[in-house]
Order: sequence, then structure tokens, then C-alpha cells
Amino acid sequence: MSSEIDHLDEVTPDLVRRVEAALAENRPEDARGLLANLSATGQASILEQISEAERDKLVGILKGDLDPEALTELDEEVLEDVLDQLDSKEIAAAARELEADDAATILEDLSEDERQEVLAEIPADERADIERALAYPEDTAGRLMQRSLVKVADSWTVGQVIDYCREATDLPDDVYDIFVVDETGRLRGSVPLGRMLRTKRPVPIFDIVDPDIPSLPATADQAEVAHVFRDKNLVSCPVVDDDGRLQGVIMVDDVVDVIDEEAEEDLLKMGGVGSDDMHADTVTTARLRAPWLLVNVATALVASFVISQFEDTIEKIVILAALMPIVASMGGNAGIQTVTVTVRALAMGELTAANGMRFIAKEAVVGSLNGLLFATLLAVGVVLIFHDWRLGAVIAASMVCNLMAAALAGSLIPLGLQKFGVDPAVSSTVFLTMVTDVTGFLTFLGLATIFLL
Amino acid sequence: MSSEIDHLDEVTPDLVRRVEAALAENRPEDARGLLANLSATGQASILEQISEAERDKLVGILKGDLDPEALTELDEEVLEDVLDQLDSKEIAAAARELEADDAATILEDLSEDERQEVLAEIPADERADIERALAYPEDTAGRLMQRSLVKVADSWTVGQVIDYCREATDLPDDVYDIFVVDETGRLRGSVPLGRMLRTKRPVPIFDIVDPDIPSLPATADQAEVAHVFRDKNLVSCPVVDDDGRLQGVIMVDDVVDVIDEEAEEDLLKMGGVGSDDMHADTVTTARLRAPWLLVNVATALVASFVISQFEDTIEKIVILAALMPIVASMGGNAGIQTVTVTVRALAMGELTAANGMRFIAKEAVVGSLNGLLFATLLAVGVVLIFHDWRLGAVIAASMVCNLMAAALAGSLIPLGLQKFGVDPAVSSTVFLTMVTDVTGFLTFLGLATIFLL
Repeated sequence: MSSEIDHLDEVTPDLVRRVEAALAENRPEDARGLLANLSATGQASILEQISEAERDKLVGILKGDLDPEALTELDEEVLEDVLDQLDSKEIAAAARELEADDAATILEDLSEDERQEVLAEIPADERADIERALAYPEDTAGRLMQRSLVKVADSWTVGQVIDYCREATDLPDDVYDIFVVDETGRLRGSVPLGRMLRTKRPVPIFDIVDPDIPSLPATADQAEVAHVFRDKNLVSCPVVDDDGRLQGVIMVDDVVDVIDEEAEEDLLKMGGVGSDDMHADTVTTARLRAPWLLVNVATALVASFVISQFEDTIEKIVILAALMPIVASMGGNAGIQTVTVTVRALAMGELTAANGMRFIAKEAVVGSLNGLLFATLLAVGVVLIFHDWRLGAVIAASMVCNLMAAALAGSLIPLGLQKFGVDPAVSSTVFLTMVTDVTGFLTFLGLATIFLL
Repeated sequence: MSSEIDHLDEVTPDLVRRVEAALAENRPEDARGLLANLSATGQASILEQISEAERDKLVGILKGDLDPEALTELDEEVLEDVLDQLDSKEIAAAARELEADDAATILEDLSEDERQEVLAEIPADERADIERALAYPEDTAGRLMQRSLVKVADSWTVGQVIDYCREATDLPDDVYDIFVVDETGRLRGSVPLGRMLRTKRPVPIFDIVDPDIPSLPATADQAEVAHVFRDKNLVSCPVVDDDGRLQGVIMVDDVVDVIDEEAEEDLLKMGGVGSDDMHADTVTTARLRAPWLLVNVATALVASFVISQFEDTIEKIVILAALMPIVASMGGNAGIQTVTVTVRALAMGELTAANGMRFIAKEAVVGSLNGLLFATLLAVGVVLIFHDWRLGAVIAASMVCNLMAAALAGSLIPLGLQKFGVDPAVSSTVFLTMVTDVTGFLTFLGLATIFLL
């Protein structure tokens, strides 16, 4: 994938190496020159690809030449590191060039003391905007929204609205919709700019308003925001307070970042890692990953205990020790397939109480079908190699059992965790592996003990 | 997550059940009534949640009452099923109500014969638009773009452009940018509608144009499109042909679907399932998942072969059979953590030739640290239970080896696959598990053979 898009990237591995060389050889002006013409995204990409020591040096060189927008593109760990190199005056200068929502996100990474220091450097009116944004919890609609928007009274004509837009100097370029409010500030609807442009001046604005537009409460979680944008194909969405009064507007480009973040989280959680893993320092990364491994030790010990109950059997037929991991690992892999589909379907809202039973039934049948297929395959192989049809029958029977158990556990575990409010992406695979390991070893060694001894 | 967003969903499990009941009890008017007031997304959600038989029945009842937009929201398997229930006249009627790019996506799911039949039902000028869209391969910028846009000559004034917009009756509501072209149709830049509205009429449009706007070739892959939108925070992006002539515009809401699709693909591929898994019929699902399981049989057999080489050792010290899966599974889990981070960093362009070596070195150190931690933990446990410090030393040494192997394999395998043009999300985990299983069994049983016999 990346090879196709390389030609669109301004930051090539070669450019990163030239920046690193300039830093290593103490040529600050060269380093500054290499970053000067990059976009904010390009600067952010360089900062993320170099080492922490190089980053500190580079930020020290750039200072005011660092594009404030670049700060908004950085992963959290990298951002903290960059902010450490800037004093409160420099951070305040950067924050003033950003939208209040972006400034709030950056200031939030500072300690309470530092944040107050930075805020003290910002003029009162701009500070108020940032503080209002900070008042909403991170990852809510209130934080994502921008406050600059075009808000007009429902009593105006199209001509009045156009004149108002022409005279207002502080309107942003990225206005796509005009929001119409009543005298108490309650949202009455919106008019796309394109439609207004095509309407005659004397027409009342209320005649061309879309009254049934979706809006979001300021307290809505960002996952909810992404869900609404996705479902309704929105480009922007107004945000209202508890009384329906217009507070701001969320633009889709901010939501794209949220969607990326949510998808990344699901992928990383299923793999047992946290979202800042890539840019955390080595010891932190090791520490963040250890709890997951510790849980896996616990489940491995359970499997190990099951095996130890069959020591006599294994002592008599040692080949069982070589064959037993096949049954367990096939169950694990088939179960991961089911868990993946279940977790994704839950996240996308495609799996609900209405179709849950049908979904589980389908997975059980899929598990049985593949169980029968691979049971036959392995039984034939075992009989050909060991000339022991009873051994073949035992491995076949345990394979069918374990793939059925994998299908049931793979669908029931995420559904159950979701029901109890636990994120199924994080914890499903641990429980699943325990079920498939235990079932695999127990059925295989158990049946062997009964029929082969 | 879904519990939070339920109140925003119009489709509750209860509504789905009521639709199912109306279908089961042959009350077609009730079913039609339940869907009549739903949005396109709501209708699509119902169609995806009911069974195939119910879906066929429901589509037969709805026919023309089905919102054509709902077709664009359906997963491919479900769409094919719905189209099967509609004749070419009905499909043509739906296609005519959609943008040409959406109509093309739906028509593409038909067989060549059916597609020609449907196209024959569509008036020539509308048909030409759809055929032009169909000429671009699926998943390219040319297919994603819409052709309706505002294109003006670079010699015009703002006043001329505004008058042109006012007079054109076929302009879509969702115009956000005016595109400026030279006399040969080459893109010269764009003007946000909001800025134009605030500019005086006699000003030449070229004076307020953004000349350095990103554009995409019509042949660009959709992953590339998503990458550009994400990096540059775009709301829309013009699409040009090889000579730089403006062909159409891609809107961000279409890109949101692409981003979702790409993220879903990565997650599903890592889990060893295809993207249509959820809605494919049972036998198809089993068949789609079998190849992945077959590959896993092969790798499990390799591990099994390694174990079988140590039959004598296991026969003498049977407890080894119970302990060996712990070493192997810890390696597998630690390796999956590394693979997940590597695959994600590659997909996001955060891992390149510039920082590859540093990334691998970090993973190796993380692997060693956690290796030492869990080696100590298990050694202490083994010594306490079995009172055999040599057994403890063997499990500790093999744990360190396997977690280091997991770190190296977990980073090198995806990087290597990417280098050779193979999608790392699909195949990394198979190779990884083989490495960690073989290393785990080999070091544990090998060291046991040397030091414990």
C-alpha cells in the first residue's frame, strides 16, 4: 500500500535521513531549511520518525518556525515530548494560531501549573474560548466542535443573510452551512451556502431552511459523533446544549481523525497493545504490554494444569504430546476468526439483540463444517503415518469438539462482555484462547485415555 | 459502545423484531409501514439484520418504496441479494435517483447481461454519466468522484461567477468550492464558497483563488485518496486526468466510507477472515475461512514435528509436555503485540526505511525486558512447585529466547512482506506463530534434553 502512495508524500525516508544528518553534524540552519517548506503534516511526520533525542534538538532549533498545526497532528507521546522543549510563551503563541478546540487538546497534555502559565500568556477573549473548550471532557462533541460559524435569525431574508456574510470579516473560509436560530438561540435548521446563493434576495431565509437536520448534544461521546456522521453522510453537524441552543459546529475533517482513532483502537486492543505504543519509550512500552502477557501466563497455566492431569497417558503414548498442540491451535485460530467478525459487527452496530441468535447459530454451523473438514484431513494423515485408526478417530473427534467450542466461545464471549459493559475488543481473545486450549487438550487427551490405553 | 449510541439509532432490536413478525404473519402493509418513515440508513440497517428469506420477502413488498440511497449503504453480499429481487426496470428507476458514482457501484454488482438490460432502461444522457463512471476501475478516484461541480473560467469576475451560480438550476446543494479552470479545462485552483460570498463583485475570481490545492489523478487508488484527505484535512478534492483537466470532485463523506472500509479490512485480515464474512451464507463463510485454517494446520504440523523429535526426552520427564505450551503461547502472544504495532505503523506511514532499524531495535529490547520478567516469574513458580532449579533455569532460558525471537519475527516479518509487495496484515501472524512455536518447543525441549537428562 505505502509504495503506491509514496509519490504523494513530501516526507521521504531520504529527507528524514538528511534531517538526521544535519542534526548529527550540528548544522541547525540546514535542518531548519529542510523543514521550512514542509506542510504541517510533513513537519509532524518528520518529528514522529526521528528519535527522541533528535526531536528535542530539532524542536530547539525550530521554535517559532514550527507550524502550530503540526502540533495537532502529533501522536500524544510525541506531542508531550515536543511541548517539553517549548516554554509557556512559545506554547501560548502556537495555541493562539489554532482553533480553540485544537488549542484545548494541546493544552490538556500539560500539567495544571503549566497550563495556567500558558493561559496567562493569552489575551482574555481568546483565553475564554480555549477555557470553554477545556470545560468539555476530552473525546466529546463539545471538545470537537468549533465555535466560529454563521448563525442568523429565523426572521431574516436571504438578502440580509448575504449582506451579513459580506460584512462579517471574521468568518472562516470553511463555511458550508448557514445555521438559523430563533430569538432564544435555539437551532431551527440550516441552509447550505450553495442553495442560499441561488435564492432571490427577498425570500425569507426560513422558506429555504432544512428544519430536520441532525444535531448532537455537546456531551455526546466522540464514538457517537462518528456514528452520526457516518450514518447520515454529513459534512458538518451543529452541536447544541441541553436546551437546544446552538453551541458550535463539528466539521467532518475532525471526525475523520476520530474514525481513524477508533478503528486503530479496536485493532490495537485486539492485538493486546495500547494506542501510544509506537511512540512510547522502550521501558514504558514493555511495561504497557506486560499486563496482557501476565493474563496470558495465567490462561497458559490453566491449560498446563489440564495437560498435567494426563501425565500417565502421555507417558504411555508419547506421540500424543506432539499431536495435542495441533488440536489446541486450530481451535484458537478458528475462534479468533469468529471473535474478529463478532467484535467488528458489534462496533458497526450490525450485530444486535435482533439477530444475535441467528449469528451464533451460523457461527456454530460454520465451526462444525470446518471442524468436520479438518477432522477428516487430520484423521487421514494420522492413520497414514501411524497406522492407528483409533488415534485418527480420537484426533478427529477432539477437532470437531474444539472447533464447535471455538465458534460458540468466539461469538458468546464478545456478546457477553458487551452486555456487561466490558469492551469486547480488549478481552475477548484471552478468554477465547483459554476455552480453546482447555477444550482442545481435555478432549484430545481425555478421549485418548478412554479409547487408546 | 453501542449502548451509548442506541438512543440515536432509529433502528432498535424491537423494531427489527416487529418487522420480522409482520413478515412471518403475512402482514405486508404493516411491514411497509414500519419501514416507510425510516431514513435510507435505517432501511439498510433493517435489511442487514434480518435473515435472507425475510429480506427477499421484504424487498418484494417494498419495491419502489425502498429508498434508492439505502442500496448504497448495504454490504455487498446483502446488496446482491436485494438486487436479485428487483427487475431491471426497478433497478434502473433506483439508479436514476442516485449520483452516477453510486449508480455505477450498484450496477457493477450485476452480471454483464443484467447490467446492459438495466442501462437500456435509462435515458441516454443519464446513462452516459453512469457508463463514464463504470469506465474507471472500482476503488479508484475516478469511481469515487461526482461530476456535478461548479467550474468557472479563470477570466471571470466574482460577480460573473455569482450570477452563473444563481442561474444554473442543476447545481447540487453540496457545493463548497468553486473550481477555476483555464481555456483548455486545466485546473487552476479553487475558491471556497464562503470566501467568494465575502468578496466584491468586480474582483477577478483569479485574485482570490487558492492555486496550490491538492488534486488527485482519476486513476488513484482509494487508499491513496483516503491518505490525501486525511493528511491534508480536506473536505473535497478535485480529480484531474493525465493532462491536468478537471474531471470531477470527491467529497469527504465518500472518503469516510473508504476509511471505514480500509480499517475494517486490516482488522479482518489480521483475524484471518474476509470482509464479506458477516453477511455471506453459512457454507460460503465456512469455505472462505478454511484456507486460513489449512495454512494453520501446516504450521501446526511443523511444530508437531519439532516436538516429535524429543519423544525420548518427554517419555523420561513427562512434566515437560505440560510446561512446553506455556513457552510457545507466551512467544505467540508477545509476537502478536509486535505484529499489530508494526502492521498499523506501516499502514499509517509512520514506519519507513528511515526509522525501521530503530523500531526493530526497540522491539528487541522490549522483548528482552518482558522475556526476563516472565522468565523470572515462571522459574520461581516452577522451582516452588517442582523443587527442581534446573527445570526452572531451562524454562527461564527458553522464555527469554522465545520472547526475543517473537520481537524480531514480529517486526521483521511484516516489514519483509511489505518490501516484497505482500500485504502484511494478511500473512504476518501465520509466519509469526510458526516461528514462536518452533522456537518455543525447540529451545525448551532442546535445553531440557541437554541439561535435565
